[in-house]
Amino acid sequence: MVTHITEEIPRSVWYGWGDPARARPLGAGALGYLRNTLGLSGVEPNNPPVDFSAVRVGASQIDDETLAELRVISGAVHVSTEDSERILHSGGKSTPDLMRLRAGDALAAPDAVVFPGDAGEIREILALCVRRGIAVVTFGGGTSVVGGVDPVRAGFAGVVTLDMRRMDKLLHIDPVSRTATLEAGMRGPGIEAALQAHGFTLGHFPQSHQEATLGGYVATRSAGQASTGYGRPENLVKSVRLETPVGPFELGSSAPGSAAGPKLLDVVVGSEGILGVITSATLKISPVPAHKSYGAWSFPSFEAGARAMRRLEQDGVRGDMPHVCRLSDTDETAATFKLGGWKTGLLSRYLRLRGQRTPALALFVWEGDAHETKARKRRSARIMRRAGGRPLGPMPATAWEHGRFSAPYLRDELLTRGVYVETLETAATWSDLGKTHAAVRSSILEALEEGGGSGYVQTHISHVYPDGASLYYTFLGGLEQDGLAQNARVKGAASRAIVAAGATITHHHAVGSEHSPYLGAEIGELGIKVLRGIKDTLDPSGIMNPGKLIPAATEEQA
Amino acid sequence: MVTHITEEIPRSVWYGWGDPARARPLGAGALGYLRNTLGLSGVEPNNPPVDFSAVRVGASQIDDETLAELRVISGAVHVSTEDSERILHSGGKSTPDLMRLRAGDALAAPDAVVFPGDAGEIREILALCVRRGIAVVTFGGGTSVVGGVDPVRAGFAGVVTLDMRRMDKLLHIDPVSRTATLEAGMRGPGIEAALQAHGFTLGHFPQSHQEATLGGYVATRSAGQASTGYGRPENLVKSVRLETPVGPFELGSSAPGSAAGPKLLDVVVGSEGILGVITSATLKISPVPAHKSYGAWSFPSFEAGARAMRRLEQDGVRGDMPHVCRLSDTDETAATFKLGGWKTGLLSRYLRLRGQRTPALALFVWEGDAHETKARKRRSARIMRRAGGRPLGPMPATAWEHGRFSAPYLRDELLTRGVYVETLETAATWSDLGKTHAAVRSSILEALEEGGGSGYVQTHISHVYPDGASLYYTFLGGLEQDGLAQNARVKGAASRAIVAAGATITHHHAVGSEHSPYLGAEIGELGIKVLRGIKDTLDPSGIMNPGKLIPAATEEQA
Repeated sequence: MVTHITEEIPRSVWYGWGDPARARPLGAGALGYLRNTLGLSGVEPNNPPVDFSAVRVGASQIDDETLAELRVISGAVHVSTEDSERILHSGGKSTPDLMRLRAGDALAAPDAVVFPGDAGEIREILALCVRRGIAVVTFGGGTSVVGGVDPVRAGFAGVVTLDMRRMDKLLHIDPVSRTATLEAGMRGPGIEAALQAHGFTLGHFPQSHQEATLGGYVATRSAGQASTGYGRPENLVKSVRLETPVGPFELGSSAPGSAAGPKLLDVVVGSEGILGVITSATLKISPVPAHKSYGAWSFPSFEAGARAMRRLEQDGVRGDMPHVCRLSDTDETAATFKLGGWKTGLLSRYLRLRGQRTPALALFVWEGDAHETKARKRRSARIMRRAGGRPLGPMPATAWEHGRFSAPYLRDELLTRGVYVETLETAATWSDLGKTHAAVRSSILEALEEGGGSGYVQTHISHVYPDGASLYYTFLGGLEQDGLAQNARVKGAASRAIVAAGATITHHHAVGSEHSPYLGAEIGELGIKVLRGIKDTLDPSGIMNPGKLIPAATEEQA
Repeated sequence: MVTHITEEIPRSVWYGWGDPARARPLGAGALGYLRNTLGLSGVEPNNPPVDFSAVRVGASQIDDETLAELRVISGAVHVSTEDSERILHSGGKSTPDLMRLRAGDALAAPDAVVFPGDAGEIREILALCVRRGIAVVTFGGGTSVVGGVDPVRAGFAGVVTLDMRRMDKLLHIDPVSRTATLEAGMRGPGIEAALQAHGFTLGHFPQSHQEATLGGYVATRSAGQASTGYGRPENLVKSVRLETPVGPFELGSSAPGSAAGPKLLDVVVGSEGILGVITSATLKISPVPAHKSYGAWSFPSFEAGARAMRRLEQDGVRGDMPHVCRLSDTDETAATFKLGGWKTGLLSRYLRLRGQRTPALALFVWEGDAHETKARKRRSARIMRRAGGRPLGPMPATAWEHGRFSAPYLRDELLTRGVYVETLETAATWSDLGKTHAAVRSSILEALEEGGGSGYVQTHISHVYPDGASLYYTFLGGLEQDGLAQNARVKGAASRAIVAAGATITHHHAVGSEHSPYLGAEIGELGIKVLRGIKDTLDPSGIMNPGKLIPAATEEQA
């Protein structure tokens, strides 16, 4: 059975995530648990977003001549200076973005939104923006949680956002070599629908799958929920077409392997729109799996579970690794069991009887033909049993898959209920995983409780590699008066803990403006200098997505 | 049974490949076959290299002050201006390098050879060379076949070559995360000996394995004979320490996955010494396989064999792919059968009886535990049989492994016998493989025969990917009066055919000076500009390995 997860949904609501009609409101049990855990007096929905009509957006600063030229390039119908469109493009989906919008602040909105139809139009728009000193933000699904698509005006005559939604075609498919060339504006479900018609899948399912675009996948060096099986887009992408302010640039090669100098493709993968606009990319594709098999295991501790993950990856039969591989820490497991209804309640009691009082829950999806996945699952079971695991059947994994794209909706409801919630992620080697997990966790908890209330942190591994794993933190606290300051305090503390642990500042959320101050610690001053040099070559006037990736402070030092 | 292939051998002889004592001279049968195939009147050994004492090297141009400073930095015993040392560092092992040396021309030799002991010394040497306007060539195993370590003097006060042999230590091993940090000057056998003491292998076995160094593996984006199984070093390397003229630069991260901006590590992997000196690198390592299993199959044509390779990679059970996977075209197979003695003669007759008159021979090595490799081999056999393959037993594959590092020795004997031989390689998608194979093959044959004699070309696939495969050409002809011109003519024709086919100019030999004129066609003028920009950032005075990678012609256009 292969679940249909590639549903096209409407574009996100202006103040939050996705289509509110798809949100699953918290039940009374969950609300009670939340109130108790966070020590709140109430969790009533008293903080809704302002009415759309009350959003402050300011007048578009674009001059008539520029506007006229944009209309000539892309057609008048594809150029908007309407407030509604500008508000929708005034940011991504970071917690600060939402906090500002919910409070009615869209003052950073771009001056115009253009919906280009092809690479030629983008080339002309960039040339125009260079001449006029206008900054350009490329906007795919707009799901950045790190400020990656926030318009930054400083020093520019204005900001134009390019919404890529019209560039949504499958350009070419090579079923023999198993590659596909896709336009950058295709959203996840569109990519899957186009490829699945030919029997293929990209295999990239980030939590933003239903909204995010191919261009964003590549520009952010993202990872998806099945990247343990399919590989991250950085490993799947073969070539990219980029429009830069100095002209079109094709990177990568059709060759499956090459020693022709540095792999410059990797300069554009992860460049977050600061070098140019990705217009299309060629990626490796895989056959749609005939079968998916689900499994869940419980371990006596997070450490035991992590050891099992490592053994599975390192000692399992080559190729046996599940496509999806997740391990919750004991906090996250407790919450899952608490909030999962009577079925998980039974699981919890079952485990307690067997000595697992604070279990860590692992979820797996194996993909392939039915015979193979069965054999893999059986061999994996041996490793998990040896690591102290107990099998729980498929239910927790199918339940996870069923709700895999719904978690971000909760943030909107929680903010409305006066609860602060945020997520962040890192990755570390197996050797450093335990201490990184603990250090970042306690830094978040401390920072949450600095505000006076109780905090709550839960963590999971969602990506497993031969040399280590990712760590994904979700944390909650009572929403303080100044939510932006609260968020900055907690994220700052976590980021400093990550840097101190020698882990990466981001495993898959990308850098944007939020992680930019920490990039220097990760890639060094010379790394920043190299990045800046590459930007100077391709975007000499600096119009492309200013304020992202390259830290501003370092720019002064240069 | 795991063959011991990691034998330390003496450093290469000055005029050719490796240790001449290890060369296996051609037998009478092979010589006759060669004479007939190439239509030569004789293949007597009438063209030996000149006597070492007759090599023209010119006086070292290094001034006393610089020499004194180098001696202070590295110790007098580690700085040489001896002719013998300079001759040994006057080039790599490209065919033009050998042709020049055999004729007694070492006039391009560096002015001094320094053997630095650590990164700190290299930092001081680079600072000195910047001040004095001296070019710096980093020399690992010196096995470049594309002019990658040839000293280029133009515009500089002199050339100093840094021979990395003293930096040959395993610095750190993390058996839990399965990574190792190795100094750049470790040669292949040294790496394997150090890792195998801990139960691990790097799994990188290029034909230059016995001589080449870790720094070279990384700097050239190389691939090895088992890279289909272990991955290319570009996929294994996690981080690199580089000494640049503007200071030390650490690239990469301990994190197993990251979205922290572009992967700048890939700017250094493949940079061929033009940005700085790689001093150490951290790479992923694998357990030494408990078992190796060998197999050979014969296919009715190269196309049928290639289809089987593709099916194996694309349709085989995940993880089943052999670690080594090679397919000879019908020409190479014919030569193998002809020259392989009575055993291959029998195989040849057996296949003819079964309708395979012009077979294509495939060789495989499966690695893993005995039970697993057996199962993989059995499943692979099904795919090969369906593709028209016939099993030939393990012998051809074990014979290949036994002689896997010996082929380059033949070039020395052939040149002495008046036979021109050269190799080159590319890679293409499965869709384009057939036409690329044919187009490059016929361009080589035509160019060989332009000189009047008969030419011979054979090809094999040595690396298999989901989206395509490599193509490796070996070609021979009578050595013309001007061997350098002959080589330039044939390589030029092949390179132009590769470019026209849209394949890569090099799959694993790297760019050096030989492929540099074709790099622009592959990465575009903007790609060259980006490379030059990165070099300007890290090596503003351009002292690092000048004349390599970045094409000179394009530099004028900039």
